[in-house]
Parts: sequence; C-alpha cells; structure tokens
Amino acid sequence: MTRLEEQIAFIVEIDKVKNVFRQSYLADGKRRENDAEHSWHIALMAVLLQEYVGEPVDVAKVMTMVLIHDLVEIDAGDTYAYDLDGIATKRERELAAAERIFGMLPEDQGANFRALWEEFEEYETADAKFAHLLDNFQPLLLNIASGGISWKEHEVRKAQIYKRNEKIEETSKPIWEYMKKVIDENIEKGFIKPE
Amino acid sequence: MTRLEEQIAFIVEIDKVKNVFRQSYLADGKRRENDAEHSWHIALMAVLLQEYVGEPVDVAKVMTMVLIHDLVEIDAGDTYAYDLDGIATKRERELAAAERIFGMLPEDQGANFRALWEEFEEYETADAKFAHLLDNFQPLLLNIASGGISWKEHEVRKAQIYKRNEKIEETSKPIWEYMKKVIDENIEKGFIKPE
Repeated sequence: MTRLEEQIAFIVEIDKVKNVFRQSYLADGKRRENDAEHSWHIALMAVLLQEYVGEPVDVAKVMTMVLIHDLVEIDAGDTYAYDLDGIATKRERELAAAERIFGMLPEDQGANFRALWEEFEEYETADAKFAHLLDNFQPLLLNIASGGISWKEHEVRKAQIYKRNEKIEETSKPIWEYMKKVIDENIEKGFIKPE
Repeated sequence: MTRLEEQIAFIVEIDKVKNVFRQSYLADGKRRENDAEHSWHIALMAVLLQEYVGEPVDVAKVMTMVLIHDLVEIDAGDTYAYDLDGIATKRERELAAAERIFGMLPEDQGANFRALWEEFEEYETADAKFAHLLDNFQPLLLNIASGGISWKEHEVRKAQIYKRNEKIEETSKPIWEYMKKVIDENIEKGFIKPE
C-alpha cells in the first residue's frame, strides 16, 4: 500500500465509530448519541470554551485529541463512566485497540495519534485536562436538555458526578461553578440523587 | 444571559445537526450518515491529509471551518450535491439560517464563525479549497466502501462528479489522481454512469 492508501484505509476503518453508541441521549431525548457525534461536538466546544481555561492550551492539539479519543471504542466498546466492572478491564481492552487502530496509519501519524491518546488517558497536561473537561461537560449539557434520562436510567448520585469531575475546578473555575449550579438544580428536579 | 450561558445555548442548539441526514451511507451501507458524523470525519481527515495540499493551509482554521460548515442545514436542510432545484434556493435558505444560528453566540464568536462559513462558501482561499476537498472526498470514500449505494440511487454520471470536483486538481494533484483512478474503477463496476 502507498502512504495515501494506508491513510485512506484508516479513514474508512474509523467510520465504525459512528456505530458505537454511548449512554448519553441527544438533547431531544429521542435516541442515544454515538462517539463520532460526541467527538464532533466537543471539538467545536474546544474552540468556544478555551477562554475559560486558566493555563494556556494548544487548541488545535486539543481538537485533534478529542476527535480521536474514542476511536479505541471501535474494538473495546463504550464503557459507561459509572460502570465499575467495565472500568476494571477498560485499560487492557483499549490498549489492544490502540495498537491495532493507530497501527493502520503510516508510522509517523500513527505514533502521533497514539501519543495524543495516551496524553488524554494520563489526564495530567493542561491540554488533556481541557479535553476531559469537554468530554465530561458535553454529556452533562445533553443530560440536562433531555430531562436527565441517562442519570435516571443509571440512578446517578451527586457524589459520583463530583468524583468524576474532581479535576474540573483546577482546569476552569467558571465552568466548575456552572456545573455545581446545574447539578444542584437537577437534584431539585429529582434527576440526580443527593447523598 | 451571561456570555457562558449564550455559548451553552448555542452548544445545545447545534445538537440538532445530529438529526440532519445526508445522501451518503456509512461505509457499512446500513444507514445514511448525519452532518455531525460527516463533519467529525472530515475534521480528522484535515489533520491526516494536509501533506497533500500544495499551498500552505492553517489546519486549525480548516478544522473549525469544517466542524461548522453544515450547521446552517439545521434550518435549511441537506441539499444533495446533484439536486439542481434544491441548489437554486440553497443560498437564500442558508443565509437566513446562518443569521439565526451564529447569531446565538456572543458577537465576537458569532462573527468569527459566520466569516469562516462565508469563506467556505466562497471557495476561493487555500483553506476553503482544502475544506471542500475534504467535504467531497469523504463521501466518495464512503460511497466506494458501501458499494456505490448513493451513486446508484441517484444515477450519478462521471461528468457530474468531474464538474463538482473541478477545483480538486489545483488543490491537490495526488488526491485528484487517486479520485480519477477510483472513479474509473467504479464506472467499471457499474456504480457510476459513464457519459
């Protein structure tokens, strides 16, 4: 295969992520959203919300990071944020997927995507923290818009949401303030369980 | 509304583009793809294929451009590339949509997205040409992968595809060479009509 043919094989392969469905419903509540839709949404949110992040971030890099962050789910499937059994085996399943999927690309581009995915997973750099903020904030907004469907389905508790979002405050105080406010409003409505 | 609340209202509004379905089928041929999925795909292709473009391009700008290029279809609907009646009224319908949708954002961000969308529509700058290349190349790849379903449904002819892609050669010779080759292969297979 030529370099271009390798890139095209990868481009066609990753089409499969459009069939990996998440626990979050669309804002209209009519169906679950898939990983491609979710990734599109948060890449655009990276452009709009960068002004709320304290540390400097490389937005182009964050966009690429979020566009690829769920590709491993083509093989490993979606693991719900509050599914403890799934989370235990997630890393192993996703590593094998990263090996296969990023391995389809020419070596330089595969290594670059692999490194971006690892940086996301490690959740340590300012870019990775911003990517995680977007990855967590978007389903929260969809959940509110759809009347809390997936919170209710999974009987999600305030403490779980706070635990999952424990690094948001250090990434962006204004977004965390907003999140706390809407979490409280959705406890009031009965969509999120209090302690 | 605060600035953040305006941005969030826009983020939730554009969720609707996940329900705007295109004529292209997914690679597996099982259903049509929607605008959010298509935009995710071509934003990632911008990162992978920039090396084939002759003139220098601003990849971060192109990514943002393609992530927003179909938002007007929330109001204006998808107009198929080879639907001549639809194309006649497309501009007017899309202008009103741009006014409303980008108008939801804080003024600076709305003006920026509006300008990016106009630049895409004008199809003159190197960035816009690269965005159009991606916008045309991706459905061609999906059409090939799915066995030419949407070409066959619309009885698409070689001359129509050449007309639609007339600026691709000046944007990227290697991609145009590849496109010509696969168009010929798909005429052989009977998926595209010769003249």
